[in-house]
Amino acid sequence: MPPISPARSLLWRSLRVYQIYGANTEVGKTVITTTLCKAARRLWAGEETAYLKPVSTGPAGDADDRHIQRFAPEIASKTLFQYELAVSPHIAAQASKQFVPSDETLLAELSISAARQASRGPGWLFVETAGGVHSPSPSGSTQADLYMPLRLPVVLVGDSKLGGISQTISAFESLKMRGYDVEMVLLFREAQYQNHQYLSKYFKEQHTIPVMAVPEPPQRIQHDPDADFAGMSRYYESSSKSDGLHEILSHLDIRHKDRIARLESMSTIASKKIWYPFTQQKHLTPDKITVIDSAQGDYFQTLASPTTAITAAPSPTASSLLRPSFDGSASWWTQGLGHGNPKLALAAAYAAGRYGHVMFAEAVHEPALALAETLAAGLRNPRLARTFFSDNGSTGVEVAVKMALRAARLRYAWPGGERVGVLGLKGSYHGDTMGAMDCSEPCVYNEKVEWYEGRGFWFEYPVVEYCGGSWVVKYPEGMRDGDFAAAGGLSSSAYPSLSAIFDIEARESSGEGRFYEEWISATLRRLAAQGRRFGALMIEPVVLGAGGMLMVDPLFQRTLVKTVRQNAALFGTTATHTDSTVDNQAWTGLPVIFDEVFTGLYRLGRFSAAAFLGVDADISVHAKLLTGGLVPLSVTLASESIFRAFESDDKSDALLHGHSYTAHTVGCQVALESIREMQQMEARGDWDWAMETTSQQTRSEKPSKDLVWSVWSPEFVLWVGQLPSVGGVWALGTVLAIRVASTDGIDGYKSGAARAVQAALLQGHRTDDGTDEPQWNVHSRVLGNCLYLMAGQRTTRESIQGVEGRLREAFLEAGAGHA
Amino acid sequence: MPPISPARSLLWRSLRVYQIYGANTEVGKTVITTTLCKAARRLWAGEETAYLKPVSTGPAGDADDRHIQRFAPEIASKTLFQYELAVSPHIAAQASKQFVPSDETLLAELSISAARQASRGPGWLFVETAGGVHSPSPSGSTQADLYMPLRLPVVLVGDSKLGGISQTISAFESLKMRGYDVEMVLLFREAQYQNHQYLSKYFKEQHTIPVMAVPEPPQRIQHDPDADFAGMSRYYESSSKSDGLHEILSHLDIRHKDRIARLESMSTIASKKIWYPFTQQKHLTPDKITVIDSAQGDYFQTLASPTTAITAAPSPTASSLLRPSFDGSASWWTQGLGHGNPKLALAAAYAAGRYGHVMFAEAVHEPALALAETLAAGLRNPRLARTFFSDNGSTGVEVAVKMALRAARLRYAWPGGERVGVLGLKGSYHGDTMGAMDCSEPCVYNEKVEWYEGRGFWFEYPVVEYCGGSWVVKYPEGMRDGDFAAAGGLSSSAYPSLSAIFDIEARESSGEGRFYEEWISATLRRLAAQGRRFGALMIEPVVLGAGGMLMVDPLFQRTLVKTVRQNAALFGTTATHTDSTVDNQAWTGLPVIFDEVFTGLYRLGRFSAAAFLGVDADISVHAKLLTGGLVPLSVTLASESIFRAFESDDKSDALLHGHSYTAHTVGCQVALESIREMQQMEARGDWDWAMETTSQQTRSEKPSKDLVWSVWSPEFVLWVGQLPSVGGVWALGTVLAIRVASTDGIDGYKSGAARAVQAALLQGHRTDDGTDEPQWNVHSRVLGNCLYLMAGQRTTRESIQGVEGRLREAFLEAGAGHA
Repeated sequence: MPPISPARSLLWRSLRVYQIYGANTEVGKTVITTTLCKAARRLWAGEETAYLKPVSTGPAGDADDRHIQRFAPEIASKTLFQYELAVSPHIAAQASKQFVPSDETLLAELSISAARQASRGPGWLFVETAGGVHSPSPSGSTQADLYMPLRLPVVLVGDSKLGGISQTISAFESLKMRGYDVEMVLLFREAQYQNHQYLSKYFKEQHTIPVMAVPEPPQRIQHDPDADFAGMSRYYESSSKSDGLHEILSHLDIRHKDRIARLESMSTIASKKIWYPFTQQKHLTPDKITVIDSAQGDYFQTLASPTTAITAAPSPTASSLLRPSFDGSASWWTQGLGHGNPKLALAAAYAAGRYGHVMFAEAVHEPALALAETLAAGLRNPRLARTFFSDNGSTGVEVAVKMALRAARLRYAWPGGERVGVLGLKGSYHGDTMGAMDCSEPCVYNEKVEWYEGRGFWFEYPVVEYCGGSWVVKYPEGMRDGDFAAAGGLSSSAYPSLSAIFDIEARESSGEGRFYEEWISATLRRLAAQGRRFGALMIEPVVLGAGGMLMVDPLFQRTLVKTVRQNAALFGTTATHTDSTVDNQAWTGLPVIFDEVFTGLYRLGRFSAAAFLGVDADISVHAKLLTGGLVPLSVTLASESIFRAFESDDKSDALLHGHSYTAHTVGCQVALESIREMQQMEARGDWDWAMETTSQQTRSEKPSKDLVWSVWSPEFVLWVGQLPSVGGVWALGTVLAIRVASTDGIDGYKSGAARAVQAALLQGHRTDDGTDEPQWNVHSRVLGNCLYLMAGQRTTRESIQGVEGRLREAFLEAGAGHA
Repeated sequence: MPPISPARSLLWRSLRVYQIYGANTEVGKTVITTTLCKAARRLWAGEETAYLKPVSTGPAGDADDRHIQRFAPEIASKTLFQYELAVSPHIAAQASKQFVPSDETLLAELSISAARQASRGPGWLFVETAGGVHSPSPSGSTQADLYMPLRLPVVLVGDSKLGGISQTISAFESLKMRGYDVEMVLLFREAQYQNHQYLSKYFKEQHTIPVMAVPEPPQRIQHDPDADFAGMSRYYESSSKSDGLHEILSHLDIRHKDRIARLESMSTIASKKIWYPFTQQKHLTPDKITVIDSAQGDYFQTLASPTTAITAAPSPTASSLLRPSFDGSASWWTQGLGHGNPKLALAAAYAAGRYGHVMFAEAVHEPALALAETLAAGLRNPRLARTFFSDNGSTGVEVAVKMALRAARLRYAWPGGERVGVLGLKGSYHGDTMGAMDCSEPCVYNEKVEWYEGRGFWFEYPVVEYCGGSWVVKYPEGMRDGDFAAAGGLSSSAYPSLSAIFDIEARESSGEGRFYEEWISATLRRLAAQGRRFGALMIEPVVLGAGGMLMVDPLFQRTLVKTVRQNAALFGTTATHTDSTVDNQAWTGLPVIFDEVFTGLYRLGRFSAAAFLGVDADISVHAKLLTGGLVPLSVTLASESIFRAFESDDKSDALLHGHSYTAHTVGCQVALESIREMQQMEARGDWDWAMETTSQQTRSEKPSKDLVWSVWSPEFVLWVGQLPSVGGVWALGTVLAIRVASTDGIDGYKSGAARAVQAALLQGHRTDDGTDEPQWNVHSRVLGNCLYLMAGQRTTRESIQGVEGRLREAFLEAGAGHA
């Protein structure tokens, strides 16, 4: 089967496409759609009006398109999938022995039909769904879920019968929480229940959506087909010419034009009104701003710029205005369960409806408590007894630093004014608030910030990558100099696989860690001799993210933690240290902080990145993936021994930190849902395909689940790693990092080496999927000379293959393959 | 009419109460409820099973409780409101000439009936709704909205007919997004459509909710009542004794017990697992932790501690386990549109469904852009051209400081290493991240934080309060000393009203501001002579929040801003200053930052607190009420002149600040919804009642909307202001601040003076509402000797009156009235 392109949102300048959803079955969808079709045809006489029924059940003679054909022969009508049994499509399709389309196929067929219609010139297309909004499609997905990616604006046909008010509002809410824009509610004017009156008021007041009543059709006359036909014909003749219909269609026409006009103006307005994060806006012209109409799964739906439309298309106006764009940075490393995830949307709405935000100091609510329990259980770090909530990774780190410094100061009895720093790694990055910035060494991110003041010492470290045909650990220069030249003098060591590098216990047993330990203790002794004071060791386990996607030798980090813990005397006198006598989880040496904001919660394939190091932190910070990629939330977990440092009879000794929305219920509920979902995915073996590929590659004899693994294929890693223009590459979990060899002599954040590949990915015009539409592309971010791609936890193997294909093209196109 | 107490969530230890909702009308709610009743009665033979129908329509002879009476005479059944017409209750009630209960009355009646049932001992109570989940109640509210505060666990009766899958899922989603816990879905086992099969799988996989099918009842036999009766009786006889029903009821019984067990264990678990913000936990025993089951409108529903239950109740186990608790701190000053607001929940879900979170750097999406536009229009400050998004007030302030310092440093050409501070006010508070902390002078919040370093100079200032029988401006000591004694030497000035104090233009014209200006310029000259450098003036307009709810004389703040702007020469040479020649909105002197995180967005009654000062900031920070009280979000708006300071050909000159969830769509969408709602409330005159009361009090002849006003009544302010134990009081917008005179000699944050009143409010046992239930109470926060209460934007006059009543009692009870 040919690969199916990512679903595309359907929007053309000249074709107004509306999706007709019903509040229930038997509410008059087909009658109202027929009226809309006939009226559109009459009012826009020079244009085409078409009708599309993606799935129909029941005898073909009774099918909705047959109705259209009879009463509106002037309309081009089509049904994509017809099943004989008059039951829900999921049963009818399975019973039929006919082809049962997958959701992807159904969307693709629908898109092709609509695109074909668009290519025929200006007009209208009405797409009628089957049954109610959540009626199952042939695959079993509900329609409301299935059609989300198309983002067709909706005309909701309300229910005029007894109970219809409830049906109409609920159906609307199910659509709305999936990001549909319901442009209008239409229903029959019915005298007894007068649902239209209630609903008009309700939708106007609550949602500013117009509700229009249309006349009821005559009673069908089963025994006299001619009289029936004549009656219905008269009805359509009159209803389609009414002022009401004119008003309805004008409204839909205007909404269509307004939507496009707004989309096309957004980048210009944004360039004048928005102050972007991490962006030099001097050269950010509107054409460089990505306009995101919506996002589903791994893809944004973005406004295709005029230059990306296919100019050879029959009519330039027929090109789709939107195109799918793979979210290659996982929206700044946050995405896990996919954009527009209805489960997360419902979880958010549930918490909002049950609580809103409620005060957390000295109070407790279920989502926060359950999240604290779930995290503690998932992290499997017996030290982490307490959970502190804040809003993002940066605030989570500030909390961690405040915790650690206080604990260290009290144990070592330093006076208040003492200048205390942190131990960390060069190139580390912990956030943008001032306290988090101060935890990193001076670099491009912070050196121009007026109040920045790096407080600490940052180690050099060995990095891991696939390079020159093998997996290597590269030692930093400082480790090869002077005294340590004797300890090997090597610039790097090669390993048969990435798994071999991560087999840290074996490496430790074989004595590899000793060299690191000597080097680390010598450095610590030197710092102690200089009189420097430190209150914490803070590292990002395994990978330094914003610092350039650097993978650190896990054995080095493990050794660093152990060495710091074993050398308390280098940090202070331990006279006041009584904790460890009563608590074997108490910190020793220095409180160890793991900043897992980027690396944790399955980003690298495991619940906790600490698991790769086999050592437990005293304080652990989590954010980003915590909410599956929906809203900001951070947790800082800490040991009881750290917590006790703040216990006192004096309120001012407490950790006086807190944000208004601390432990906001929406974030906690969504986090709970996300984490449970990811844990279930792991338990179900949803990533086995990736684990197995990696396992084959490494030829390890261990059970595959113990290995490091990645969704990015070993073949691709090997291929890209051997390009002359590539300095090194690694893939772990959902992350792929490619170090493009610098050709301009500039390294690091300011390098432009990766930009050509990034631009080619964004252009994305090579592969042709057989339509005239602008092709899907890949939206990525670079960190200087590092191009990285990041998938979500639900990204499919097929999606990865598609992106790898684009990457291969982009490298070749950018000439980077031949540098 | 007697005042109606806030709605109470219904939970008793011994009475299992379930609410039966239907996926549609005519799905078999009554038949299934009758079966549940009969089975419960049989299986729990020693207990009572009761049936309650709050609202019924149709001829009384056909009513659902009549059905119960016929087929389950062993069940105590009751209908609260019966209307003859067989249409939706909102039409039937209006047409009936009978009493039409308001939502509050209906909830109160239902609660009383349920409480009465609970007092009769252990048992079951099934509450059957009418029609579908969103069928309108007599008042016109939909049932799903109406019954939210009761938080009864739900048995959802699914629809077994064609289209019923859709109806059932949509109905479920409408309930879920209102915070209902649907414990079970029951529906008829129907052979043709087999909805139960699809739904069982769906609800198990998506929501871990059990779905059980029950046998269909026999066809009713209209023409032969005896046969009909016999047939139905046989059906009930068999269905109520089935294993399935046993299983269903056991599940409901267990869920009931689990809910209570969990609620009762939460505070103990929290005391061991949670690290609370701003809390000294050494003495925080579990009984001091508020367990919040849910929240609606202005009220939490909290677990009533055993000591607050009425011990004289007939059976101690019959007391409700939950009680309403007025959220007197507006959940740390965040709440505006009420807890559990379905509109905000739907807005959050819409953004989650349409986008999830999407990357914002160099991209744009509708919610962020529309929010930026709406804020810029609402603030009416022509300087504020750009919007920068971050996550909370603290990060918003850090962004503001980074903006201001860079702009000042470049204009005044200070070298990078120059030590630059901010000008501010003593007691100011801007957040808990290190950079925000450094903007405040040393105080209890920051002085023990290891990396804190106050960077700036903080002015003393005159404060406003009602005290000693009049409204006064009290001058600080520093202003009365030395040279300035000559300028009046007064310790305070009295004014006829708060409005008179806020009539700053009149006061300025009459020369009052001159004294302030001289004092401020003298101070600035002194600082300049000391060689101090400042890069910003940062103030909280009108009220200093965390600093102790201090109202600052608005004329002083206005004069401070003007004086700083007019004295550029005191801050630096303006050689590089070319902005103002091309931009009359450019900053002069120093960039002026207004931290409106607490004071803005209608907290004090106006869109912007700056409006009280009549001067425009160069940078304005907003958060808290921004999202109406749902999720964290902050914006920092800045002038184009500030923005341009970051423009350069060098990327590293950009504002390199950004959080992963920058401009997250959920926050932006909810903010947009909230702000528009508050603007509409203002336009509609929703606060006229409060404006009018204030107007009468001040006897001003100006149109009332120009006045300062508060929801807190003038009568109460005068009453409390005259208590001997009260030092001063003020009320503005939604805020009431009462300075309790210190009796222990300790002032400020560490003072315990207000704690007795706070404790009395929390106890809340004086007023008796005629039931045996624990009374509603008031949850409040104190700031040292300041007790404050804060309402939301939708808090009603009646709610305020109720809280004022509790406050009066609390002051008297705490003995504070007689100190």
